[in-house]
Amino acid sequence: MLEDLKQQVYEANMLLPEYGLAPFTWGNASAIDRQQGFIVIKPSGVPYPELSPQKMVVVSLDGEVVESSLSPSSDTPTHIELYKAFPAIGGVVHTHSVNAVAFAQAGRDIPAYGTTHADFSYGDIPCADALTDEEIGGAYEKNTGLVIARCFARRGLDPMAIPGVIVRNHGPFTWGKDAKKAAENAAVLEIVAKMARYTEQLSGGPTDRVGQSLLSKHYLRKHGKNAYYGQK
Amino acid sequence: MLEDLKQQVYEANMLLPEYGLAPFTWGNASAIDRQQGFIVIKPSGVPYPELSPQKMVVVSLDGEVVESSLSPSSDTPTHIELYKAFPAIGGVVHTHSVNAVAFAQAGRDIPAYGTTHADFSYGDIPCADALTDEEIGGAYEKNTGLVIARCFARRGLDPMAIPGVIVRNHGPFTWGKDAKKAAENAAVLEIVAKMARYTEQLSGGPTDRVGQSLLSKHYLRKHGKNAYYGQK
Amino acid sequence: MLEDLKQQVYEANMLLPEYGLAPFTWGNASAIDRQQGFIVIKPSGVPYPELSPQKMVVVSLDGEVVESSLSPSSDTPTHIELYKAFPAIGGVVHTHSVNAVAFAQAGRDIPAYGTTHADFSYGDIPCADALTDEEIGGAYEKNTGLVIARCFARRGLDPMAIPGVIVRNHGPFTWGKDAKKAAENAAVLEIVAKMARYTEQLSGGPTDRVGQSLLSKHYLRKHGKNAYYGQK
Amino acid sequence: MLEDLKQQVYEANMLLPEYGLAPFTWGNASAIDRQQGFIVIKPSGVPYPELSPQKMVVVSLDGEVVESSLSPSSDTPTHIELYKAFPAIGGVVHTHSVNAVAFAQAGRDIPAYGTTHADFSYGDIPCADALTDEEIGGAYEKNTGLVIARCFARRGLDPMAIPGVIVRNHGPFTWGKDAKKAAENAAVLEIVAKMARYTEQLSGGPTDRVGQSLLSKHYLRKHGKNAYYGQK
Repeated sequence: MLEDLKQQVYEANMLLPEYGLAPFTWGNASAIDRQQGFIVIKPSGVPYPELSPQKMVVVSLDGEVVESSLSPSSDTPTHIELYKAFPAIGGVVHTHSVNAVAFAQAGRDIPAYGTTHADFSYGDIPCADALTDEEIGGAYEKNTGLVIARCFARRGLDPMAIPGVIVRNHGPFTWGKDAKKAAENAAVLEIVAKMARYTEQLSGGPTDRVGQSLLSKHYLRKHGKNAYYGQK
Repeated sequence: MLEDLKQQVYEANMLLPEYGLAPFTWGNASAIDRQQGFIVIKPSGVPYPELSPQKMVVVSLDGEVVESSLSPSSDTPTHIELYKAFPAIGGVVHTHSVNAVAFAQAGRDIPAYGTTHADFSYGDIPCADALTDEEIGGAYEKNTGLVIARCFARRGLDPMAIPGVIVRNHGPFTWGKDAKKAAENAAVLEIVAKMARYTEQLSGGPTDRVGQSLLSKHYLRKHGKNAYYGQK
Repeated sequence: MLEDLKQQVYEANMLLPEYGLAPFTWGNASAIDRQQGFIVIKPSGVPYPELSPQKMVVVSLDGEVVESSLSPSSDTPTHIELYKAFPAIGGVVHTHSVNAVAFAQAGRDIPAYGTTHADFSYGDIPCADALTDEEIGGAYEKNTGLVIARCFARRGLDPMAIPGVIVRNHGPFTWGKDAKKAAENAAVLEIVAKMARYTEQLSGGPTDRVGQSLLSKHYLRKHGKNAYYGQK
Repeated sequence: MLEDLKQQVYEANMLLPEYGLAPFTWGNASAIDRQQGFIVIKPSGVPYPELSPQKMVVVSLDGEVVESSLSPSSDTPTHIELYKAFPAIGGVVHTHSVNAVAFAQAGRDIPAYGTTHADFSYGDIPCADALTDEEIGGAYEKNTGLVIARCFARRGLDPMAIPGVIVRNHGPFTWGKDAKKAAENAAVLEIVAKMARYTEQLSGGPTDRVGQSLLSKHYLRKHGKNAYYGQK
């Protein structure tokens, strides 16, 4: 079942080591079939070279494994909550990429310092609040997804304009229209995090963000109905 | 038409991912045929592995597409203004290389700290002024080129001696006698930006520039009529 | 003799350059056969491309070469003391990976700042005390092992929960159930050291560690009897 | 003539891009035949992929080209002065490796912070004094060599124990018993410079050097008559 989606999810997962975002078995990518209400996701703890489309795991939005002899990624409940909270997204990626993790460990948003950031996200990448001890001790992975959704709701952020988040002391989750775009967003988030870190070194600490007009110009030349970047 | 120039521009574009300066579809290289008044440039938003010499786009100095079914790089008007303002240049490159972007985001010139910089540029790489909201809201890409030209004019800089610039909150543009040299200058600009960042970390902040005599010695042993570096 | 173990130790040694942890002849991996009381270790100063399983050196727990025409790693006495002090470990790795060395040279523990660290170590990676001049002038490599063991004993650390250490002004030693796991731990230790360094840059210096509940959650979902990461 | 030495010098030059020390045509390696008084060195400005053993240039200690249709490296007079000042060395390498250049641009010695440094150099790598305007305006490359020799003489340093130097605002020169060892020393100098930079970030600035006893222990276990690292 869902052979096309399994192929897409497999390919998106394989982008993670290719982009240098996921050593060992770290990281995972998924996609959703909104009509059937099924998610396809990487199996837990399997090294990337051993993956194949057939090893992708199909789970329901209740977290039940629908098809596979393998266990799904332990982060599956986080993916599920993101699909529930953000109805327009089609793919989700989680990594431990080093610069994004550094912002997560410092407990800081990734500031939108320039056009590279604006080309990809219409503002800062938020750092979600830390989970409480109760949230950690309970349904931890599900609660991680709920904390992300709460962060976007409370700040009034549009998940289609801000394609990722960093979870406090943990790392980034990104999303997009499909799994491939989510993987690309994971790569770009890491690049802009690195650029922001370098910028702050040169500035002696946090500095001014890109102005609103330049942020809008770059975001809107690549996204939305008046976009003019790329081929028609 | 312009088959030789298309080949050169194609090869210069392919150097950008090879030098690690341009992930995804980022970055672009162009060259000009001064006699015909035509520019050859990368198509917009096409991944590097899908490029070919035939896909390079020919545009006039008015920005009209002369030959191609593809749209030219969205940065084409910036390239055009640079060719107009700097009559001696033959190629232009734009990237989002990370250390150069960090200087752009910090709003700082790249200081000429040593001989690696002097071998390539006869002084600091300037950071151009930010565009005004009006400039951003209007013909943004054209205005980016005008801001660069204004920066060089106001500071009295020779674009053949200072082969690049960083645009505020954006990133670097470099140029040279042809597209290949512009691409090489983009790579060297990134290297000297990295060296400058490291130097400042070791110095606890900005420090003394290379002395004028050493700057001149290295620049002039590689450039100009008394150069003695390389083979005759 | 010990052909299987030699193969494993050979493969673990070859992981060190593959993981980017060991240029030239630097670094070494070993494993122990607890029943026979023999250790298999890399020969001293042989470049990685020249290694083979047959070149691995078998030594007794007294440090005597049991089988080989080659001299064992000069760090062999350190490995021996670790096997004696930590009865549950099966493999040991030593590298000069750059971020771990930086913590060693700064004389600092690697703080457990997030879940990447928690997935691998149940708390900070300790920096052992400097050896005294007498310890350096005497049986230096043996004393290095004793200093590590003393560090764990005095701090009450469990070597199966904290899979590595950094030796003051020197570098990291890691261990695990076998040589392969010790090599993987060497790679992860380097990654979390890098993340910690980046985190401190973004925070303006050392900052808060990951909370105890998140540390426990991540460590215990990967380790111990209630672990649920990976396939059964 | 000197076919063996040309082969060695060719191979040492090719190590520079392999070690990531020399993009484009930057960097150069040479070796000396002390009996004949001839030096073999890389031609000036030739890209590495175009080099061959036959293209290496033979020059006399007076700087005269003895055999070649190519011009020798513009840094040849520096190499010559090093061979004259340091009679025990057999090979010299110059690079613009980024961390070493950062120390040169900061005008600082590379501090011996740990055993990785001690394994390679018996103390700090000195940063030579800046050349005077007269020295730069005169026989610049020759004077660079004289400044290095003066630095070692004035500080009482043994060039066989301290296998390199950084030239103020310029970059590193390293040496060894032959060209290959000089190239390896260039790579290690870059690694220890990086480690020192990282160490200072973690320490909030320059910190304590490795103690004398540990410095001696590591240097002497790899070098000199009582060395016990490696195979006999």
